[in-house]
Amino acid sequence: MTKQETAEFNIKDLSFINDIKTIAVIGPSRKRDYYFLRTHAENYKGKIYAVHPNVKEIPRFNDENIYPSLMDIPESVDYVYITVSSSQILNVIDDCVEKGVKLAGVFTAGFSDLGTEEGRKLEEEMIRRAKNSLRIIGPNGMGMTYPKKGIGWRMKFPSEPGNIAFIGQSGGISNLIVYKGSPMGIKFSKVFSFGNGNDVDFVDLLYFLSNDEETDVILCYLEGIKEGRGEELIKVLKQNKKPIVVLKAGKFKGAAIAANTHTAAITGEYRVWKTIFDKYNVIDADSVEQLLYAAKLIDAYGLFELKNIAVLSISGGYGVVLVDQIENMGLEVPPFSPEIQNQLNQELIAVGTSAKNPLDIAAQFRNLKLVKHIVELVLSDKNIDGLIMDLPSYYLNTGYQPGRTPIMERKLIEIMSLGYSYKKPIIPIIQRTNSPEHRSSMIEKLNEKKIPVFNQPLEFLSLLPKISKCAKNKME
Amino acid sequence: MTKQETAEFNIKDLSFINDIKTIAVIGPSRKRDYYFLRTHAENYKGKIYAVHPNVKEIPRFNDENIYPSLMDIPESVDYVYITVSSSQILNVIDDCVEKGVKLAGVFTAGFSDLGTEEGRKLEEEMIRRAKNSLRIIGPNGMGMTYPKKGIGWRMKFPSEPGNIAFIGQSGGISNLIVYKGSPMGIKFSKVFSFGNGNDVDFVDLLYFLSNDEETDVILCYLEGIKEGRGEELIKVLKQNKKPIVVLKAGKFKGAAIAANTHTAAITGEYRVWKTIFDKYNVIDADSVEQLLYAAKLIDAYGLFELKNIAVLSISGGYGVVLVDQIENMGLEVPPFSPEIQNQLNQELIAVGTSAKNPLDIAAQFRNLKLVKHIVELVLSDKNIDGLIMDLPSYYLNTGYQPGRTPIMERKLIEIMSLGYSYKKPIIPIIQRTNSPEHRSSMIEKLNEKKIPVFNQPLEFLSLLPKISKCAKNKME
Repeated sequence: MTKQETAEFNIKDLSFINDIKTIAVIGPSRKRDYYFLRTHAENYKGKIYAVHPNVKEIPRFNDENIYPSLMDIPESVDYVYITVSSSQILNVIDDCVEKGVKLAGVFTAGFSDLGTEEGRKLEEEMIRRAKNSLRIIGPNGMGMTYPKKGIGWRMKFPSEPGNIAFIGQSGGISNLIVYKGSPMGIKFSKVFSFGNGNDVDFVDLLYFLSNDEETDVILCYLEGIKEGRGEELIKVLKQNKKPIVVLKAGKFKGAAIAANTHTAAITGEYRVWKTIFDKYNVIDADSVEQLLYAAKLIDAYGLFELKNIAVLSISGGYGVVLVDQIENMGLEVPPFSPEIQNQLNQELIAVGTSAKNPLDIAAQFRNLKLVKHIVELVLSDKNIDGLIMDLPSYYLNTGYQPGRTPIMERKLIEIMSLGYSYKKPIIPIIQRTNSPEHRSSMIEKLNEKKIPVFNQPLEFLSLLPKISKCAKNKME
Repeated sequence: MTKQETAEFNIKDLSFINDIKTIAVIGPSRKRDYYFLRTHAENYKGKIYAVHPNVKEIPRFNDENIYPSLMDIPESVDYVYITVSSSQILNVIDDCVEKGVKLAGVFTAGFSDLGTEEGRKLEEEMIRRAKNSLRIIGPNGMGMTYPKKGIGWRMKFPSEPGNIAFIGQSGGISNLIVYKGSPMGIKFSKVFSFGNGNDVDFVDLLYFLSNDEETDVILCYLEGIKEGRGEELIKVLKQNKKPIVVLKAGKFKGAAIAANTHTAAITGEYRVWKTIFDKYNVIDADSVEQLLYAAKLIDAYGLFELKNIAVLSISGGYGVVLVDQIENMGLEVPPFSPEIQNQLNQELIAVGTSAKNPLDIAAQFRNLKLVKHIVELVLSDKNIDGLIMDLPSYYLNTGYQPGRTPIMERKLIEIMSLGYSYKKPIIPIIQRTNSPEHRSSMIEKLNEKKIPVFNQPLEFLSLLPKISKCAKNKME
């Protein structure tokens, strides 16, 4: 992004973020056991400094990298994380500007979030002192997590880079997104918790991520935007080419009031938002969990259209219920085309199986060569857009055939990867039953292969029409 | 139940089931490694025999309890599990009748389930030979699981008795219910998979469980009932006093066709079923998972009315989203009454918290004495029917305060048990994040205390209006 473009958009340039080399934590607190210094130092791959007027020693941190003031650090600093009290903030900001720091994450609260005139004034003064030279994420936010560089505001945040980004006002939701997403196999490019968002705001971050080469899918938790930023938001959405999934808070009355209290955001009427989401192809999620499920699906298969679904189950009954749930979403489980049906009839002949859609392979599940052939037949059917596979986890425990489990796992993953060859999504459901260790092992491997696996149908079914609609609109 | 009552209802008497003492597995197959003998022997607390014309030795089974014929067993037998081929079934049934066996679970398939005239005739002949003296569960069913006696048709089925019953045609769904329910803390009284259901059918089993002292909640997976049994079903529902939760298969077109294929059941039109469910206070579940979630909620708090909900979260953002999800279900998150609000305002004063509904306790979560006091205040509010508590699992990991975890766990369980003292439901959500072991430990203890804990709101929110409606109707 050039300066000209950002000026045209009235958007703050954040493109320098990808070039951050040196960082500092200002005001690490001994009372808090230097928590935010430790979180930032835990995985950081570049040079990190601590700034504190009195502290000379910090456990497990190099004394030589502790300085009484930012100005004393012998090299330039790109990103600072500020945790001083609000009464000290202005001096720190002045130092940052003088030092030429580009970006600050301000964790400190006690500004407009207080709801007082005094708080609002202090916040305005802080922004004035930053002189458009220092960009601020916050105050009252968690800042930035950037796994590729090892920047993170919490302990045990991931250090493996990914392509999913998240923007949220709320620190709590941002924490949840990372802590919940990681074990689901979601890897992040950048995560922003911008709190009061007085300087860098939702629209700035969305524009940055929309043009960030390290980001493929953008997830957002949106309480609202500041007055006067609506036009910019529309411009950003217009130029955007990436999938955006938004969880809008305050859709209903009670929640809207609560969101207002939470970060003093203007939530706006949901129907206005809904119109914008529809027009600009934004996927509208209903829960924190659904944001992550959408990321899993889109990261695996991009935006896909899925209308005619094949179902393969091991229990005929579960298959029948799945069909009900799928049809309830306005999707279809159509008959296979005659030539494919003929072939399936010849392959799936054992008692207790059913060769029609929904397929019931029953005990034939043990014959993975046959299962693979059936899945290939199904995916080659022009009547079928994709496959939902039900797999209760106790089938993964080969029990009295020890040693077979790894082979079985490998073959199953081969089968579930067929979606990529046929360019049609395969979505496995591995139900939680009584073999948690076999299940975990399988899921870890599926995550590595980017095969979006779920615990139960209700986690993803309602997302399928939303993703399909978005895919269709993008094509047009 | 007296003979007279069953005659009046045209229902088969199954009350002898609770008195079963001796069982036999007929036709254990060496090829299958004596699977069904092993499953029944695994936990059985009484005397168990194996019947096979040629087999003299079975690994890990007492030779002296193997007999060539049922007639040779030197004592009476109450329940037999039949796995012989369909060609041998008639002779086995004759033996059962002569021996005075009361109940048979017939796993053998190849009867009306084949969809052939020959299959149908063989099934009719089998029933004729049973002479109303031997009751048959099946054919083409998994039979009966009865943990209190240690009867189970699968390996690793639970042996601990409970008060939740399940009826289903499908063996696969019945397996899932047990395998999924057990790790959720659901304990079963009896589980029936009745397959073709030619003798003992859905209506018989529902009546039996409705009057079974060991059963408090009845879960059903229903594909359909046989022609001419509708009137009896209504009679059974009329006299029933227990919560019944039904998952009706074949609600939509495609699923209805699939269900027909599956067990040749008459699925009927869903709107007819819906009318019956509404009229007789049956809770209509949408998925296999929801059946189990309903069981958890009702087992904990009975049928409860929950309209005005308090929300307590650790992340304000998550609380806001929860309110949206709750309001979307037609439920309310009302303000606290003025006197309670005053007290909360005095207790919850730390920066970043919110004392209004939804409550945001933020970092005050660490002060469990305060949390307890807040929960007590909330539950004592006449404006509030119950509390949903959000608890991301990483808060259970006290990390750098080792040794605190067990204390914290104990205190949290104390807090979550307050629902019982105040007779208002508390429903905790312990989100899956990055501390699976702390989460598992906590959930196990909550299950023991019958506190219904969930992973995410979408698992239970849609059930709340259904349970409330049922509770309200029962009161009237």
